[in-house]
Amino acid sequence: MKIYEKSLNEMKKIVARYTEQTIDFEIEKTVSEIIQNVAQNGDQAVRDYERKFDNVNLADFSIPAFQLDQALDSIDEDLRAALELAKQNITSFHKQEIENSFVDVSTPGIMRGEKITPLASVGLYVPGGTAAYPSTILMCGIPAKLAGVKRVVMVTPPQPAGINPAVLAAAKLAGVDEVYQVGGAQAIAALAYGTETIPAVDKIMGPGNIFVATAKKQVFGKVAIDMVAGPSEIGILADESANAKEIAADLLSQAEHDKRARAMLITNSKSLAEAVSKEIERQLSTLPRQEIARTSIEDRGFIAVMENTAEMFELMNDVAPEHLEVQLKNPTQYLGLIKNAGSVFLGRYASEPLGDYVAGPNHVLPTGGTARFASPLGVYDFVKRTQFIQFDQQNLKADLKAITKLARTEGLEAHARAIEARFDKED
Amino acid sequence: MKIYEKSLNEMKKIVARYTEQTIDFEIEKTVSEIIQNVAQNGDQAVRDYERKFDNVNLADFSIPAFQLDQALDSIDEDLRAALELAKQNITSFHKQEIENSFVDVSTPGIMRGEKITPLASVGLYVPGGTAAYPSTILMCGIPAKLAGVKRVVMVTPPQPAGINPAVLAAAKLAGVDEVYQVGGAQAIAALAYGTETIPAVDKIMGPGNIFVATAKKQVFGKVAIDMVAGPSEIGILADESANAKEIAADLLSQAEHDKRARAMLITNSKSLAEAVSKEIERQLSTLPRQEIARTSIEDRGFIAVMENTAEMFELMNDVAPEHLEVQLKNPTQYLGLIKNAGSVFLGRYASEPLGDYVAGPNHVLPTGGTARFASPLGVYDFVKRTQFIQFDQQNLKADLKAITKLARTEGLEAHARAIEARFDKED
Repeated sequence: MKIYEKSLNEMKKIVARYTEQTIDFEIEKTVSEIIQNVAQNGDQAVRDYERKFDNVNLADFSIPAFQLDQALDSIDEDLRAALELAKQNITSFHKQEIENSFVDVSTPGIMRGEKITPLASVGLYVPGGTAAYPSTILMCGIPAKLAGVKRVVMVTPPQPAGINPAVLAAAKLAGVDEVYQVGGAQAIAALAYGTETIPAVDKIMGPGNIFVATAKKQVFGKVAIDMVAGPSEIGILADESANAKEIAADLLSQAEHDKRARAMLITNSKSLAEAVSKEIERQLSTLPRQEIARTSIEDRGFIAVMENTAEMFELMNDVAPEHLEVQLKNPTQYLGLIKNAGSVFLGRYASEPLGDYVAGPNHVLPTGGTARFASPLGVYDFVKRTQFIQFDQQNLKADLKAITKLARTEGLEAHARAIEARFDKED
Repeated sequence: MKIYEKSLNEMKKIVARYTEQTIDFEIEKTVSEIIQNVAQNGDQAVRDYERKFDNVNLADFSIPAFQLDQALDSIDEDLRAALELAKQNITSFHKQEIENSFVDVSTPGIMRGEKITPLASVGLYVPGGTAAYPSTILMCGIPAKLAGVKRVVMVTPPQPAGINPAVLAAAKLAGVDEVYQVGGAQAIAALAYGTETIPAVDKIMGPGNIFVATAKKQVFGKVAIDMVAGPSEIGILADESANAKEIAADLLSQAEHDKRARAMLITNSKSLAEAVSKEIERQLSTLPRQEIARTSIEDRGFIAVMENTAEMFELMNDVAPEHLEVQLKNPTQYLGLIKNAGSVFLGRYASEPLGDYVAGPNHVLPTGGTARFASPLGVYDFVKRTQFIQFDQQNLKADLKAITKLARTEGLEAHARAIEARFDKED
């Protein structure tokens, strides 16, 4: 693994993300045509695309509810117990994210407030094959249900051997209400515009290939979407007190996801840097996904040796990693220094995969530096706010001069007159 | 104004929004080229576009701080007092939106939590000419500063007579930190990628023309953006107790914004419907923006007479208006029936322009039916969340079986081994 010993400024240039904007207008056009076709022709268009792209001929896309029950009964006991444990902890954590409406009646005659309302429906895209993670279904479905969403819809591409039972079991546990075997841009179009079989939803989330991601971007505005997810990332801050073998194992746990995954160690200990680099080599050799993990480590991974912890945190905030491990002595004291990260793992026993599965916080996290402005998936993603005000005559009159002044300054005469209409002499 | 007397189902079809997807690939390509050019060539590219599109030759885009102070001193006393009142009420309302970090230590040996961090920087696009509303600058800048954003940046197209002093005064009152005279897609590109003069921001907000809107969509992901705003809307629910003259005035206050603005009255009183329609004609004839308001009312406005209040609310929830007035007896009792609306105005004295200016709630609201899933602009738009966990050895051990089971079910061996590394015998 590459080890850098450079100044903070030089390191900042090295970690700066590749920012060239790449839009493939051919894909944009193809996706735009798919969306328009599905918006106009509904089920028939979806069926045609499924025949063309997934080579299946489905009379009915929907998976009946009893198949979810059967799947849950069919999975092995340990898997079921693990999913149940995850559900319990995800629930207890995310309950704390539930927000309250508020009302302010501090001025007599005036009521002002904001009320929280759940979205009526959301759609979750689950990729096919080995990328269909049961754990992700729990991470999306449970916060949606805690928020009060009535219709949680899952779409996933049809599979030759049928949908993976672990996926259907997780859907059942997560409280998913409807499942459809539809994939690609046509699935996103169906969720956004609705078809005879698949009623439209208000928000679409979940990862997918370039066609799915492009379709999500294009329907943004018609419906809400989550962030477009990039490859997984882990950043580790460690000092000489850390265990090289454990750090190497944690770096590899993200590297195995994807050749484009990014594993980064920032330390103030040269000896730790060298020990981790050796451990990576040793552990790589026995990993089933060795080829993927090796490409990730060699092409995109690095170890940076910095002068001190202040530099370490400044550089890591520039990186804004999806996952951040703090393997320093007294790790909690550094929480205030962390500005940009999706999820933070404090100390030796908070190994990153703990958060992926059972700790309770979400594992759908901002990637690609978007932790600068984006949050983990949470209950707040499944509600919207509505403001409200009530004024009595006296309080409106007190504000009349200011309102009409501002309205006329902005050239909006009818705005001023609407207020004045309440005080016309003739009434 | 059109008056419909139709069944709920027929009305639902009439109010259904026009959903055809229209992407202009020529504009997409032009904007993509502008963004790439600004990302690569910085200030020089911005300067070239300003010369080409705005016909100005600016040595320096930035407006020095003292010009904001001068502008605030130069505006008339009444305008200043009105802006100060607005600021005070916007502040007191939005303070209530400030969210707290939380920590959960209910299981001994486990700490789980979520911390709120302000965005480091945000950019506000303010259109030029008459669409540059000082009130909107307060509505964006004040929540950003309450959230704790350090750098609030404003960009606005250069004007032949210089930037409107009311705009600069509002920027000063809102706490805007930097102002640049740059417009169009090049301004959005500069905010997203940064130039020598304009450092990049983390989130871009504010309305603009099709080039600005397209640029915002294209940089989404590199930075966060707010929703793409559509024409203004007002929906009014009224019964026979309402005042036709006031209702007509409120409908016109939105219709004057834009020929594509949408003013809607839903009532259970035929006589009110007819009285409002007459009042609209009478009031239109003396409005300075008569042409705009008339086009909006005739092309897009309507009055629907329904059977009862249940139908009225169901239809209005389908519309999901930006602004919703409830001009019914005992209006507060209906709050629970309102599912989809940006801001709600309860009773006779909560005329919509009150909310535009001084009441305190935000006037940057979801349009075009997006109130189904989107919220008013608020303090929550200027923060992000970071989760954190800390586990002791015993608690990690208790979860080991579940974690490794889930990891191996998902084919992620290195995930399982990272946890097992903490319990290897050799240590």
